[in-house]
Amino acid sequence: MVAGGCPRRVEDGAAYESGRGSMASPHHALAPGAERMTPPPCGLLTLLTDFGLTDPFVGVMKGVVCAAEPQVRILDITHGIRPGSIVEGAFWLERSYRYFPAGTVHCAVVDPGVGSARAAVAVAAQGHYFVGPDNGLLAEVTLHAPHVEVRQLDVEALGLRQVSHTFHGRDLFCVVAGRLAASKVGFEALGPLAHLAVPSPIPGVVSEADHFVGNVLTVDHFGNLITSLRAAEVLPASGTPFRLEIGGEWLRSVRTFADAEPGELVALIGSFDAVEIAVRDGSAFSRLRPTPGASVKLFPS
Amino acid sequence: MVAGGCPRRVEDGAAYESGRGSMASPHHALAPGAERMTPPPCGLLTLLTDFGLTDPFVGVMKGVVCAAEPQVRILDITHGIRPGSIVEGAFWLERSYRYFPAGTVHCAVVDPGVGSARAAVAVAAQGHYFVGPDNGLLAEVTLHAPHVEVRQLDVEALGLRQVSHTFHGRDLFCVVAGRLAASKVGFEALGPLAHLAVPSPIPGVVSEADHFVGNVLTVDHFGNLITSLRAAEVLPASGTPFRLEIGGEWLRSVRTFADAEPGELVALIGSFDAVEIAVRDGSAFSRLRPTPGASVKLFPS
Amino acid sequence: MVAGGCPRRVEDGAAYESGRGSMASPHHALAPGAERMTPPPCGLLTLLTDFGLTDPFVGVMKGVVCAAEPQVRILDITHGIRPGSIVEGAFWLERSYRYFPAGTVHCAVVDPGVGSARAAVAVAAQGHYFVGPDNGLLAEVTLHAPHVEVRQLDVEALGLRQVSHTFHGRDLFCVVAGRLAASKVGFEALGPLAHLAVPSPIPGVVSEADHFVGNVLTVDHFGNLITSLRAAEVLPASGTPFRLEIGGEWLRSVRTFADAEPGELVALIGSFDAVEIAVRDGSAFSRLRPTPGASVKLFPS
Repeated sequence: MVAGGCPRRVEDGAAYESGRGSMASPHHALAPGAERMTPPPCGLLTLLTDFGLTDPFVGVMKGVVCAAEPQVRILDITHGIRPGSIVEGAFWLERSYRYFPAGTVHCAVVDPGVGSARAAVAVAAQGHYFVGPDNGLLAEVTLHAPHVEVRQLDVEALGLRQVSHTFHGRDLFCVVAGRLAASKVGFEALGPLAHLAVPSPIPGVVSEADHFVGNVLTVDHFGNLITSLRAAEVLPASGTPFRLEIGGEWLRSVRTFADAEPGELVALIGSFDAVEIAVRDGSAFSRLRPTPGASVKLFPS
Repeated sequence: MVAGGCPRRVEDGAAYESGRGSMASPHHALAPGAERMTPPPCGLLTLLTDFGLTDPFVGVMKGVVCAAEPQVRILDITHGIRPGSIVEGAFWLERSYRYFPAGTVHCAVVDPGVGSARAAVAVAAQGHYFVGPDNGLLAEVTLHAPHVEVRQLDVEALGLRQVSHTFHGRDLFCVVAGRLAASKVGFEALGPLAHLAVPSPIPGVVSEADHFVGNVLTVDHFGNLITSLRAAEVLPASGTPFRLEIGGEWLRSVRTFADAEPGELVALIGSFDAVEIAVRDGSAFSRLRPTPGASVKLFPS
Repeated sequence: MVAGGCPRRVEDGAAYESGRGSMASPHHALAPGAERMTPPPCGLLTLLTDFGLTDPFVGVMKGVVCAAEPQVRILDITHGIRPGSIVEGAFWLERSYRYFPAGTVHCAVVDPGVGSARAAVAVAAQGHYFVGPDNGLLAEVTLHAPHVEVRQLDVEALGLRQVSHTFHGRDLFCVVAGRLAASKVGFEALGPLAHLAVPSPIPGVVSEADHFVGNVLTVDHFGNLITSLRAAEVLPASGTPFRLEIGGEWLRSVRTFADAEPGELVALIGSFDAVEIAVRDGSAFSRLRPTPGASVKLFPS
């Protein structure tokens, strides 16, 4: 169904966005509505891992997909998740998937428990598909989804029993994701309906009388600290100024990096709707050296 | 016009190379000749940024292009430009674009001033298209171009007014570059004719009585120091031996790494026609630790 | 022969696996049987280098291939080989190629002797093609191949005499690999039959009375130490427990990371059939800081 090795344009993608505002609790499988609400796979597969690019781990995953499903297009979201950091992986997966076409299959592998009893799952939510370990990594994308369908991968039925003990990314997840992206197997045929056993590892934002408490989740390439505070949730309007407290330091908010003084430590709304801490022409991480998960307090002005 | 997701071969590419040797000064828009001299977009889009690969920034740019223009092929030039280094970005863009097919659209984003008043532009020059901020990054490619056409991106007309304040790479530049690469919009429709406001940040080579003075522009993965001295400009023939002085050290020139003694600090003409400083089986950067922009003197023998 | 920019499925790939168990010694060209045993190029080209991703070296290689052979699909195996480490490159190439489709052309460049007299070669073995320098990098893949054919690249006949002295990856190897992958040139037309002058740099495993002696070859992104000991060669069955000695430390074997105690230094069979040393949720490299090539002893239980 995919011509020319590139995903076709999903002309009917808008349909899946008509979420009915179901009040279903997250982390539980619903009746198979999400799958019906999800457009068919569009022939695009993304990869998000903590494998880095120093070794051929990512390369051989692509080889495996390309050998079995040559018509599937593969794009990297990132392979730079901090090794073993499910928090960071869950965060970036949730903030990134929406920039890809509806019907994309996202293969996400941050899997310190590989080879243990943790389940392997596929999730249909928000018009996208997700394949990976059930360790919290895929849970964040389901939190606000009106319809979620989870399938536990049936490795026997899929003919994938003989996988390695240490590299399910290559031997299981990307094989399944490739077949799904190529429409070789239907989502409902991946295994029985299930629920995610492990919830999102991202701590919730706490709402106090006059402020919100969140956490530093990750640091980006530029040394900006990215927090769990989502502008849409903590500010009445996107341009509202605020003050941010971290480790006893008080920061003013600016609109963009160029509005800060050179070397000034500031807070701003980053491009993924997250409250971030930055130093103009410098690294907030080097300046503050926060511990992972360090708490921050936001006071709207 | 692109079949199968891959750029067609540009059979008529030679036409654009018939530069008429115009004496037009750089940094100024010419009459719309360059656009007519530039072959139509070939369906290939490249990315050159300082975003690194640790975060999903590059991944979501590709998602955005793929979602809107699935038939466009995307290749990375590099995402390893030193954060905020317009010099390094301008240098590598100018040395790299020529290895891609004529009609390629190069989306270049090293943009410390994102969200400020700096303009967003598209440039047609040398048979290629370039999209990015007007901060000097795109100026180097226009320096020796017989025909240059610059368009200031009209974000209103392009329907891109609601962009983020901190990530124009995703919300503006790659969207425009994708449309251009897919021939969805013509170059002349991107906005009004303009000129580049900011010149190339790469310092010019100074010609003295018996030597040339240049600067160290960047250090590569192997620790080689790459200078602004271009062999074609400072040596009568490519094999001419020379001596190079940096920080009081005098280096002989060799033809290739293997011609140096193990551990010897030498100068040579690198593969991008730049004079480089290298240590065989070692790192010239670790040996010399030059300050950014350190000056070098080349004496032809 | 390739439709849509993606390699066609190699439906007849199984044929080449019917190796006849020839006892031919490695490192020597055989009669042109391997080429006949190798399926035709499938339109896929991989890259394995020590170029890193900081500079545009890899990007321009892709540009060169894309400009000349737009229908060839390009996948990265890795560009993170330690600079100049032929051992690491040879190891990962041999362990990785098999995950790509039969008929893939692998362009491998770890080439500290670039510009010297070392030969440039193409190899057909194990149903795949390999292009790179004759410095040991391609030798490991030939070791257990029932049929091997080596061609010395004839740069004159290929019209590639004017290559740079320092970047044969761009000017020679990927040009040839691209033409081969696109079936523009036949393998036998690349140059005269030859043999590999330089053997594999990977030290052989030594078999003692009650144990095997191997070496640490590389360290991966997670800090795991990967040795030259191949499970299939040193253990009677894949699940056999063993003890491993390195630098006076004795390690027990586990099945997967999750079977170790947090912080425990253990040995296990990694996903590429290599005996590895790992620390659960930590880095074995940081713990042991082995010298390159450090020896390890494996005692089957």
